[in-house]
Amino acid sequence: MQLSVYLAGEIHTDWRENIIAACEGLAIEWYGPVTDHAASDDCGVEIFGAEDSKFWHDRKGASLNAVRTRTAIARSDVVVVCFGEKYKQWNAAFDAGYAAALGKPLIVLQLPEHDHALKEIDAAANAVARTPSEVARALKYVVAGKL
Amino acid sequence: MQLSVYLAGEIHTDWRENIIAACEGLAIEWYGPVTDHAASDDCGVEIFGAEDSKFWHDRKGASLNAVRTRTAIARSDVVVVCFGEKYKQWNAAFDAGYAAALGKPLIVLQLPEHDHALKEIDAAANAVARTPSEVARALKYVVAGKL
Amino acid sequence: MQLSVYLAGEIHTDWRENIIAACEGLAIEWYGPVTDHAASDDCGVEIFGAEDSKFWHDRKGASLNAVRTRTAIARSDVVVVCFGEKYKQWNAAFDAGYAAALGKPLIVLQLPEHDHALKEIDAAANAVARTPSEVARALKYVVAGKL
Amino acid sequence: MQLSVYLAGEIHTDWRENIIAACEGLAIEWYGPVTDHAASDDCGVEIFGAEDSKFWHDRKGASLNAVRTRTAIARSDVVVVCFGEKYKQWNAAFDAGYAAALGKPLIVLQLPEHDHALKEIDAAANAVARTPSEVARALKYVVAGKL
Amino acid sequence: MQLSVYLAGEIHTDWRENIIAACEGLAIEWYGPVTDHAASDDCGVEIFGAEDSKFWHDRKGASLNAVRTRTAIARSDVVVVCFGEKYKQWNAAFDAGYAAALGKPLIVLQLPEHDHALKEIDAAANAVARTPSEVARALKYVVAGKL
Amino acid sequence: MQLSVYLAGEIHTDWRENIIAACEGLAIEWYGPVTDHAASDDCGVEIFGAEDSKFWHDRKGASLNAVRTRTAIARSDVVVVCFGEKYKQWNAAFDAGYAAALGKPLIVLQLPEHDHALKEIDAAANAVARTPSEVARALKYVVAGKL
Amino acid sequence: MQLSVYLAGEIHTDWRENIIAACEGLAIEWYGPVTDHAASDDCGVEIFGAEDSKFWHDRKGASLNAVRTRTAIARSDVVVVCFGEKYKQWNAAFDAGYAAALGKPLIVLQLPEHDHALKEIDAAANAVARTPSEVARALKYVVAGKL
Amino acid sequence: MQLSVYLAGEIHTDWRENIIAACEGLAIEWYGPVTDHAASDDCGVEIFGAEDSKFWHDRKGASLNAVRTRTAIARSDVVVVCFGEKYKQWNAAFDAGYAAALGKPLIVLQLPEHDHALKEIDAAANAVARTPSEVARALKYVVAGKL
Repeated sequence: MQLSVYLAGEIHTDWRENIIAACEGLAIEWYGPVTDHAASDDCGVEIFGAEDSKFWHDRKGASLNAVRTRTAIARSDVVVVCFGEKYKQWNAAFDAGYAAALGKPLIVLQLPEHDHALKEIDAAANAVARTPSEVARALKYVVAGKL
Repeated sequence: MQLSVYLAGEIHTDWRENIIAACEGLAIEWYGPVTDHAASDDCGVEIFGAEDSKFWHDRKGASLNAVRTRTAIARSDVVVVCFGEKYKQWNAAFDAGYAAALGKPLIVLQLPEHDHALKEIDAAANAVARTPSEVARALKYVVAGKL
Repeated sequence: MQLSVYLAGEIHTDWRENIIAACEGLAIEWYGPVTDHAASDDCGVEIFGAEDSKFWHDRKGASLNAVRTRTAIARSDVVVVCFGEKYKQWNAAFDAGYAAALGKPLIVLQLPEHDHALKEIDAAANAVARTPSEVARALKYVVAGKL
Repeated sequence: MQLSVYLAGEIHTDWRENIIAACEGLAIEWYGPVTDHAASDDCGVEIFGAEDSKFWHDRKGASLNAVRTRTAIARSDVVVVCFGEKYKQWNAAFDAGYAAALGKPLIVLQLPEHDHALKEIDAAANAVARTPSEVARALKYVVAGKL
Repeated sequence: MQLSVYLAGEIHTDWRENIIAACEGLAIEWYGPVTDHAASDDCGVEIFGAEDSKFWHDRKGASLNAVRTRTAIARSDVVVVCFGEKYKQWNAAFDAGYAAALGKPLIVLQLPEHDHALKEIDAAANAVARTPSEVARALKYVVAGKL
Repeated sequence: MQLSVYLAGEIHTDWRENIIAACEGLAIEWYGPVTDHAASDDCGVEIFGAEDSKFWHDRKGASLNAVRTRTAIARSDVVVVCFGEKYKQWNAAFDAGYAAALGKPLIVLQLPEHDHALKEIDAAANAVARTPSEVARALKYVVAGKL
Repeated sequence: MQLSVYLAGEIHTDWRENIIAACEGLAIEWYGPVTDHAASDDCGVEIFGAEDSKFWHDRKGASLNAVRTRTAIARSDVVVVCFGEKYKQWNAAFDAGYAAALGKPLIVLQLPEHDHALKEIDAAANAVARTPSEVARALKYVVAGKL
Repeated sequence: MQLSVYLAGEIHTDWRENIIAACEGLAIEWYGPVTDHAASDDCGVEIFGAEDSKFWHDRKGASLNAVRTRTAIARSDVVVVCFGEKYKQWNAAFDAGYAAALGKPLIVLQLPEHDHALKEIDAAANAVARTPSEVARALKYVVAGKL
């Protein structure tokens, strides 16, 4: 079974690459946000012109990024959301909520230390994984129907 | 006319293979749950780690299986649900209800002895078949427009 | 917070009455199927005329009952599904699937001996209760926000 | 114009009470999560029985809380999300994403120091407020059509 | 259980009045098209000005009538469609299809002589009644849960 | 621009073939009901077994045909509905209503003598054509953007 | 039949008051945008703080106004859109498109001199009226079923 | 990431060609209205026959054009709306509203002099561009994830 998978969340480690590599050969189409941090932050003002205020600088970028992320999430069958060690990562949680409301199955990738803080998101998810390798095994199982 | 068909329900006989074989040559894309019973039961704990409690052992597996079944049902044009001789098969009935609420045409495959117990599900279905061969003939008719 | 609750499933014990009594005073509007077994079986032929075949006798009744159940489920905020001791109860599982696909929160009421057979339905539910009293406490908590 | 408003997010300060008090006299129906922290954490095990594992303890509670929050968000016209000083508050961000995907207008209540971390959520919102009083003025304007 | 019922179809006999009278005392809100034939035909040009062409005369009226019928069908729980003796009554069939696509339960009221011509519409319906009295009994059963 | 077009309605003249031939070379995928009248009438009993009653004979066939027609209408961008000279053709009107409720653009093909009887359906349509050739020209214009 | 009506478009003449007065006694709930031009323009910066740039000044106000207009349009059964003599009135056209995509019946109020410029919007509407009085008569007809 | 983009709005300058040329090599499928002004105005009467009244002449054309535009907007991931120097362009605003209600991300292309008149539409958009080149850069960024 072919699958479209959106990889949401943190952009500072190579978890996406690990999952994609571990799923090589499977009929999976991968989607994700722009992972070039600087481009993601500055795309709005780079393309549409500078802003004096940081607030609107951010707004222009975030709004443009949303064109990509909303389209890609809507097109995906499964959304994997990774919560990393650093930053607030409210965006990851927002994407999880967005996907949940669209009825997309969620797989959350997180360390046990965040279990309590993420309990509502975990409760909305089909699986909670601890490593990219677990996510890859789960996707393989869904696609190929075999452990 | 091309068709996507989900084959839901019992996983202990070869009814799926019979239907698929009888439809050879037709433009049908087949979907279904994982039919390896052991894998289906244990996939959750195999991938995400063991559980002390059987209840959560089951939950982990069922939640992962749902990633596949929900995605596949949503993608299908027609859902065939087979009620077999053994087990409670509440899952088959659940899939039938799920598909019905999504507006998917249902074909129920069952023996006459269950007619009364299945009357609400039959009433939600477009056809009640007694053999895989009847299901195959119905799908052929839908796809090819000929008896 | 006001709530509309559909009580689906078995019609041979007084679990509905127990829950409703235990929730007295709460702003809950109750829905459910026709629980007069004979009326539920025969309503179709009683109103629209007899059928020679039991199959179509059942169809007429089940189709009419569906006018009530589908309307009531669609109008409910929460669906409670009770799996009892007797009968196949595929209808209860069908209603659970139907409600799940509509995004209605589910509370399953069942005994532990059916845990494995009901694992997929439990995995789609927000809670698994063992007694009507637990269901009532859960509904109270949802409505009143207090334990 | 009557309005239903869901107040999502942090549960440790009195921002909800401030907004509600400031909107007295307006035709607003208020919704929100259970704000008794202990009840919110323990409702699952209190009602449905204890769990050995903290993970499933949390799951039971979060799943039950979701019955209330999902129902209330779906019923609301506007969702106000407050990001406070403490904790990760991923749940607030999840609710914001959930509401956004349902097409609910969002008002985010946050301090400027979180502007960059919240830029995607702010970009999905109709307004970013700094104080409960600003939220109340905005709701008044929406309901009464006057500044 | 309260019900909203749309009475679609022929406007030359008193079948609507018969059903409504027979349901007196039940919590049913009734909807229907404008049954004053002349007003229904001429409302468009009466209000918005005459047309030289009968085709556009009809268009203006039909478009205005659709404001009422579409709104009322969308708001109804059940749609009863009566096919009478006279005229083509394509409008009745159109309303039936419209309601079916919205997932509204249908009750068709027709004489047996039209069974073959109406077989597709009957197959989309929850019940086929022969008299207004049968429709009334069916609605009573749905609302009151008793024969 | 590629288009999927469903050709609904009468099955006794060659209007479908005329339109398809006149659109040769355009990127149009054609859908339609089974046009073999005997097969369409008898498919249900042929596949699933004979019925004593003509009513249920018809029901079995109509329900199976609906698997094809509903799937195909849902998949189409445009629905063309032809009202011919003979028969009641309530099914054509039903398909028109069904398509309208799904938001599918309609093109009605009919002779002027039925204008008044079809006014509500015409008012729901994007175009009223008098000949298959007009339908073909309209589809060409939509696909190719040129007269 | 009760109706909810949104009055969209120009805010410089008394067309809203005229319609409402002419419909006195009918069961109509009226919705509309904020019609105090200054408040509508400045609400954003008044409540959430001043902006150096006129572009973001406007953005803050328009986003807040959208909370009211989107909610009210979604809640309405019918949307009346008035195109007046002055200004570009793109907002009126935007509201018309928004309502059309939600399947809301439209009544356009405009002078004949704009017929060609408004032809696409008129084609999406159920009626084109020339005076508030015509709109009122149309609404009366829809509500009361009488000319 | 592949993208489907609808280019809505003015048809008298070469902004569409500029954007398409600047995006050469990207996986973008382009949609748009018929841009041959005469064909767009007269398609209805050319195909379905002349009308005495200019109003119905326009209606016939606009309704046929809507078959193309509605289908194409529904199929697109992103809608770019250009407001040019000339004409009222209510149609562009209507398309923007239509796309917004479907949840399609909008990019508005307009000159600063229209900022105030377009503030509500801009507030519904993900980006406001001043030149076709900016639109092209934005689409490149969305598709390729790089500045």
